[in-house]
Amino acid sequence: MTTYSLLILPGDGIGPEVMAEVRKVIGWFEKNRGLSFAVSEDLVGGAAYDKHGKPLADETMARAQAADAVLLGAVGGPKYDNLDFSVKPERGLLRLRKEMDLFANLRPAQCFDALADFSSLKRDVVAGLDILIVRELTSGVYFGEPRGISDDDTSGNEGGRVGVNTQRYTSGEIRRVARAAFELARKRGNRVCSMEKANVMESGILWREEVQWVHDNEYPDVELSHMYADNGAMQLVRNPRQFDVIVTDNLFGDILSDAAAMLTGSLGMLPSASLGAPMENGRPKALYEPVHGSAPDIAGQGKANPIACILSFAMCLRYSFDLGAEADLLEKAVEKVLADGLRTGDLMGAEGGKPVSTAEMGDHIVAAL
Amino acid sequence: MTTYSLLILPGDGIGPEVMAEVRKVIGWFEKNRGLSFAVSEDLVGGAAYDKHGKPLADETMARAQAADAVLLGAVGGPKYDNLDFSVKPERGLLRLRKEMDLFANLRPAQCFDALADFSSLKRDVVAGLDILIVRELTSGVYFGEPRGISDDDTSGNEGGRVGVNTQRYTSGEIRRVARAAFELARKRGNRVCSMEKANVMESGILWREEVQWVHDNEYPDVELSHMYADNGAMQLVRNPRQFDVIVTDNLFGDILSDAAAMLTGSLGMLPSASLGAPMENGRPKALYEPVHGSAPDIAGQGKANPIACILSFAMCLRYSFDLGAEADLLEKAVEKVLADGLRTGDLMGAEGGKPVSTAEMGDHIVAAL
Ligand SMILES: CC(C)[C@H](C(=O)O)[C@@H](O)C(=O)O
Ligand SMILES: CC(C)[C@H](C(=O)O)[C@@H](O)C(=O)O
Repeated sequence: MTTYSLLILPGDGIGPEVMAEVRKVIGWFEKNRGLSFAVSEDLVGGAAYDKHGKPLADETMARAQAADAVLLGAVGGPKYDNLDFSVKPERGLLRLRKEMDLFANLRPAQCFDALADFSSLKRDVVAGLDILIVRELTSGVYFGEPRGISDDDTSGNEGGRVGVNTQRYTSGEIRRVARAAFELARKRGNRVCSMEKANVMESGILWREEVQWVHDNEYPDVELSHMYADNGAMQLVRNPRQFDVIVTDNLFGDILSDAAAMLTGSLGMLPSASLGAPMENGRPKALYEPVHGSAPDIAGQGKANPIACILSFAMCLRYSFDLGAEADLLEKAVEKVLADGLRTGDLMGAEGGKPVSTAEMGDHIVAAL
Repeated sequence: MTTYSLLILPGDGIGPEVMAEVRKVIGWFEKNRGLSFAVSEDLVGGAAYDKHGKPLADETMARAQAADAVLLGAVGGPKYDNLDFSVKPERGLLRLRKEMDLFANLRPAQCFDALADFSSLKRDVVAGLDILIVRELTSGVYFGEPRGISDDDTSGNEGGRVGVNTQRYTSGEIRRVARAAFELARKRGNRVCSMEKANVMESGILWREEVQWVHDNEYPDVELSHMYADNGAMQLVRNPRQFDVIVTDNLFGDILSDAAAMLTGSLGMLPSASLGAPMENGRPKALYEPVHGSAPDIAGQGKANPIACILSFAMCLRYSFDLGAEADLLEKAVEKVLADGLRTGDLMGAEGGKPVSTAEMGDHIVAAL
């Protein structure tokens, strides 16, 4: 029997609470579906800073590299807001992404029928929404050099400083994430829309040309369109269902995927996967995390919605272990508890529902399995 | 009597049609309010490329520098999509912004009551929406050096090219646009929210620190908050009315202001102003343009909505010539025709309305004056 090694990094804020519910789900699959997981746990973000003075210890990084998959909760909190840039909680997450070379970030924005009324958008605009944003995650302005703040005494620069970051993409970096997007599109609606600002940025021109190249040479069967990112933001608000798969760079992806997530009205429901190249065993390097943040305001109160984190584990089953049937099962169990009217605080709306705590939601999902 | 010199650059697509209606409005103010305008007209964008082989002739640039204010229609169209980067229609607009040093781009996102149902958002989320995005317009990744596409033969770079752009901000550039935002906030709700990605970009850290500095030293009476731009995109979708003035950089401003514009549901209604430093006569350098684009698909058919361009002229009256009463009058006339049910094609919804052409809309606004 294969044993899958999982590294769990609960992180900060509501991270540990929601991850505890994922553990229950893992336990269920071990007991009832004959799967075997070797689970270990470690620190990331503020929690790691508190212990090690940095947001990701080298030993943790090594364990992440060795694991079949990493599950992450969330990082950050007001306690760490004034830390130096180099040791901020976010740096732990960014180090994981970069050193594991997780170049393709999959962010589904799905509107759950039972929750469509939570959206600030009209029901008929978002009901049934199912788009997938593929965000490049290891390059661009997040990692480009030169970067930093320096003194600048040119006359006319009141304040005397200058801040620089570099947006940098190689054709190879663009091609590999484009391939990921085309592959995913083939299993969905077979349409990819690529977004950049080729009208003002040369890196955007390169982006557009390389995505087109991959299309023409390798995926001519997939429908490809291009859109400026500002128009993309508008179209996501105007009529998000026009999209199937969107592929875009690290920074645009950060903003557009958050906007898309919010369209669904149920941020506490949305998972994500960050995938890299295949390892020796054929599985991709992978990290799974909910789209929501650490929500320090409700941390430790049993109010958090564990579903995004649980659905991230479903993505793990599907993308890391090729256990599509198990992933489906878990996703169905989530749909079932929602249809039954069970609601954590974030999902309580005008039409009511049965209020449940974080742990109760986890228990109900396990029961539904 | 003062004569105000106006340079009109209708540009491409629907630009000339909507500008023709602004001319009627200008005529009305001359005849009925004793104002005197010296209006001249010139080419920009694709129209300028067709004549001069570049999207803004040097003579036009000089006329823009000399004018009291510039009114621009829109630039771009499919005909010019494959032009070289350096002569694309957009470069004409970017050159105007840069050489006139129009660092503060004011983009109001207002939801007109008569049109609230056009929004893809629920009426109760957007009704009464009135936010002002102040976007930095002359620096950042739009203009930073180094930039370009070059060969890169590092092994592992399949494709062998690299695209680079530079995000660069000086403290002085940040401070001056922050001041513009605080000044505007004082005349509105007295609140400013500054957006960046200080958690991943050093230029964002500088942005945050300098905005805070201007606040603490010069505008302590204005309420200031900071938000990461990805969260900003979410909050704009979730609850846009939480904002009064938003100040952000060139690229984030491009995307967030377009998302905000689309929230209102009436893109054809939204004006913008781009302001620079005061000239010798005390008036700021200024360019006014509608937020919508050149809409080549409906160009020349009398279908375009001239209101965004007409309201841009209202902003011109207010910000360039300090003619607040005249601006109010024009804005009231626009509200009147909307209340009367007059609608160009983009505003025709389920509840009907009286369909009018571009020219008829202009005539009715003049009549309402
Ligand atoms: C926490 C932060 C560094 C991160 C990012 O900007 O990528 C987050 O916003 C995300 O989208 O995962
Ligand atoms: C046309 C284009 C260059 C421009 C920009 O990106 O600034 C437009 O999108 C805008 O927002 O005015």
